[in-house]
Amino acid sequence: MLTYNFDDSKRPLYEQLYMLIKKDIEGGILMPDEHLPSKRSFAKNLGVSTITVENAYDQLMSEGYMYSIAKKGYYVADIKDKNKIVKAVRINSDIKLPEPAKKYIYDLSGNQINPDNFPFSIWARLMRETISRDKNALMTKSFCAGIKPIREAIAAHLYSFRGMAVDPAQILMGAGTEYLYGILLLLLGKDKLYCVENPGYKKIFQIYEKNGARCTYADMDESGITVDGLNEVKAEVAHISPTHHFPTGITMPISRRYEILAWTNEKKGRYIIEDDYDSEFRLNGKPIPSLQSIDAGGKVIYVNTFSKSLSPTIRVSYMVLPVELANKYYKELSFYSCTVSNFEQYTLAQFIGQGYFEKHINRMRLHYSRQRNMVMDSLKKSGLSKRCSVLENNSGLHFILQFDTKKKDEELKQLFEKKSIHMQPISDYYYKRTDTQHRFILNYSNVDKEMLDKTFDIIKKIL
Amino acid sequence: MLTYNFDDSKRPLYEQLYMLIKKDIEGGILMPDEHLPSKRSFAKNLGVSTITVENAYDQLMSEGYMYSIAKKGYYVADIKDKNKIVKAVRINSDIKLPEPAKKYIYDLSGNQINPDNFPFSIWARLMRETISRDKNALMTKSFCAGIKPIREAIAAHLYSFRGMAVDPAQILMGAGTEYLYGILLLLLGKDKLYCVENPGYKKIFQIYEKNGARCTYADMDESGITVDGLNEVKAEVAHISPTHHFPTGITMPISRRYEILAWTNEKKGRYIIEDDYDSEFRLNGKPIPSLQSIDAGGKVIYVNTFSKSLSPTIRVSYMVLPVELANKYYKELSFYSCTVSNFEQYTLAQFIGQGYFEKHINRMRLHYSRQRNMVMDSLKKSGLSKRCSVLENNSGLHFILQFDTKKKDEELKQLFEKKSIHMQPISDYYYKRTDTQHRFILNYSNVDKEMLDKTFDIIKKIL
Repeated sequence: MLTYNFDDSKRPLYEQLYMLIKKDIEGGILMPDEHLPSKRSFAKNLGVSTITVENAYDQLMSEGYMYSIAKKGYYVADIKDKNKIVKAVRINSDIKLPEPAKKYIYDLSGNQINPDNFPFSIWARLMRETISRDKNALMTKSFCAGIKPIREAIAAHLYSFRGMAVDPAQILMGAGTEYLYGILLLLLGKDKLYCVENPGYKKIFQIYEKNGARCTYADMDESGITVDGLNEVKAEVAHISPTHHFPTGITMPISRRYEILAWTNEKKGRYIIEDDYDSEFRLNGKPIPSLQSIDAGGKVIYVNTFSKSLSPTIRVSYMVLPVELANKYYKELSFYSCTVSNFEQYTLAQFIGQGYFEKHINRMRLHYSRQRNMVMDSLKKSGLSKRCSVLENNSGLHFILQFDTKKKDEELKQLFEKKSIHMQPISDYYYKRTDTQHRFILNYSNVDKEMLDKTFDIIKKIL
Repeated sequence: MLTYNFDDSKRPLYEQLYMLIKKDIEGGILMPDEHLPSKRSFAKNLGVSTITVENAYDQLMSEGYMYSIAKKGYYVADIKDKNKIVKAVRINSDIKLPEPAKKYIYDLSGNQINPDNFPFSIWARLMRETISRDKNALMTKSFCAGIKPIREAIAAHLYSFRGMAVDPAQILMGAGTEYLYGILLLLLGKDKLYCVENPGYKKIFQIYEKNGARCTYADMDESGITVDGLNEVKAEVAHISPTHHFPTGITMPISRRYEILAWTNEKKGRYIIEDDYDSEFRLNGKPIPSLQSIDAGGKVIYVNTFSKSLSPTIRVSYMVLPVELANKYYKELSFYSCTVSNFEQYTLAQFIGQGYFEKHINRMRLHYSRQRNMVMDSLKKSGLSKRCSVLENNSGLHFILQFDTKKKDEELKQLFEKKSIHMQPISDYYYKRTDTQHRFILNYSNVDKEMLDKTFDIIKKIL
């Protein structure tokens, strides 16, 4: 294997490695398209950390000296092809980047999409067809709320999949739900008191707060957020996820839904933001209608995304505005350009319209249901199931493991960390409350059997 | 009416019903496009609850065995048609859409990209290559500021094209400049007094205002915005486009640039937002350094977009933050996800990195310079050039025609309108001032000879 000696003690190791490889590529010692060692084995061979090799490889790739092929590895680039390489500028400023997310060997909290599960070939074909067919449309500025075909396709999907009858004109496309929440703040006003669920996904709170809106939180009971809770904090806009609450997994029953809707109608200016982020993955059980579909008062803003159903990396979300708010949006905010690229809007419109989206969801449901069964089997086989209970409602991509232990959540979490297990307790998602419920979130969207078996073994020992 | 008997008592009723209908569809007993009973009447007929029928129908629709048409009812799907098109839902709500932009026969204000000028085949190829090569990366959540390769490619481009030495970590990608201005408001604070140019592009003012920031405007002289003007309104953040001001076309000379920079350093908390939106299309003449590149105090935020240089429909913009602000962004706002899709980030990174972007700009410069010459020729040939002067500085995609007339701008504009000519006077872009300078904007990015000849003939008659 490729071997180098490090001697320049003043430079960081990765830089030395980078320069040594670069020299060999420029000198023709490493030939174009020659295979380079994997990061791990190279690191072992050189007696350095994998991170060192990674940094050196990253630099070489960004400068065009190397390239990589997924699942194959790293190769020497043909540097004679001058036209292909733009030299990177290296400026060293004093910028402190946010800490990269820690990597875990046993990650039960990841929600990245496994590349095997994205319909790349269909997507690539539809993109190609769109480009060859719709050149004019692709170059024509999108309507502020998004192009018509995608809003029509989404309306049809919502109707058949969720029983929601909405006018495509009520649908507003955006580059992520975070962007849409920003638009909602402009629409509803920052003087209102926004209320999120406790526990909950803290980013939503952060967005309201950073944008200068007043934001609070209300406790939930076993059916979700309560009218008493909302009244207690004097909430005006309730931001909730009744279909499948994160992290508790609670599905709000129909009776509570009507109570919450009645609450919105008690006073003018009250609204519900219904975050339906993973409703496509109800694995079985009776479907419960969305709040939007049983809302007669025009008080529910329905928000959904393709992040869970397709990939968080395509950045396409949408919301369904009640008629009154839609009119307000068109009157006051239609000067904002749509944030989703036409290329992706037209491709996604075809993807939904030609039935691929539905097929994809069905396939993913089957896949996730298998994943779920695999977790259950592994849990049973490991014997860990005797030391914990599974709290779930056959929905979404995660469930809760409640451990039978006297250890506090924080202690347990740290013991997991030490063994490179990433699993978060629900208590992490509470605002100003440190419950110790021994309830941990298990996201099974991207786990495999071997990893699970090992993880559960380790957890058993820890308990 | 369709009738079934339930006999499998162990299964829930809806599931039995679902299986019975599915069997009949698969067996051809229920034919494609056959009408199915309404939920209510079907439920009554079968002696079950409406929810039971609904659940069965939902399941069948989600699997593609049935489809529905709003206000009409349910139908059997053609299950042989694998590529089935999702039927559109038709709901008529009382939504008043914004008026579509009026179409003109002679449009000299359009800034749409002519589809012939977008590098579709290269873009399609790079997209295809990206999809086949970078599957893992495409599914991995982008760094908050954008993926590394595109920020490196932009840094290299800014270096070679604009002489700007920036750390890729200073670059923040966003789905349009409007989105980036929103982020800037969070970063700089809404309590500051923002100042835009008068005349100017009113959307920028609207964005600041709608977001709850205080916003004002300052008059310009023939070199752009002035320090006196900024001081007079007590501006704290000046949002300007010194390279090529819209609509006047003014390029701020270097001496004025240093004056404005000195102004920022006089008081803490002052900033310049430098909008460099069409700097790629300086057709000839000495390049003037960007304010960012001569700013030693970390007071300039540089903003640019691919809207003019590629297409406004791909929604990719970026800004270069001074180090101090970049650190603040990473510390306080890095929880925001990047708004640009990975697919487009990786494709664009290749487009820039492999040199296609530079080639494209060069090609477009040549094209626009020909367009400009064509306008000049047509103007001369028509004899209209005797009745107007051309104000320009060989930059960007528009220049100004100053007509020799006693007619007021508004009157002239309306006379143009009547003949279906779209040309806007600069006076339309003033805040609270109605100058009559007879100066009209001529955007030549998407005009052709025949249209020009006719337009100038008509204008001559009107004058």
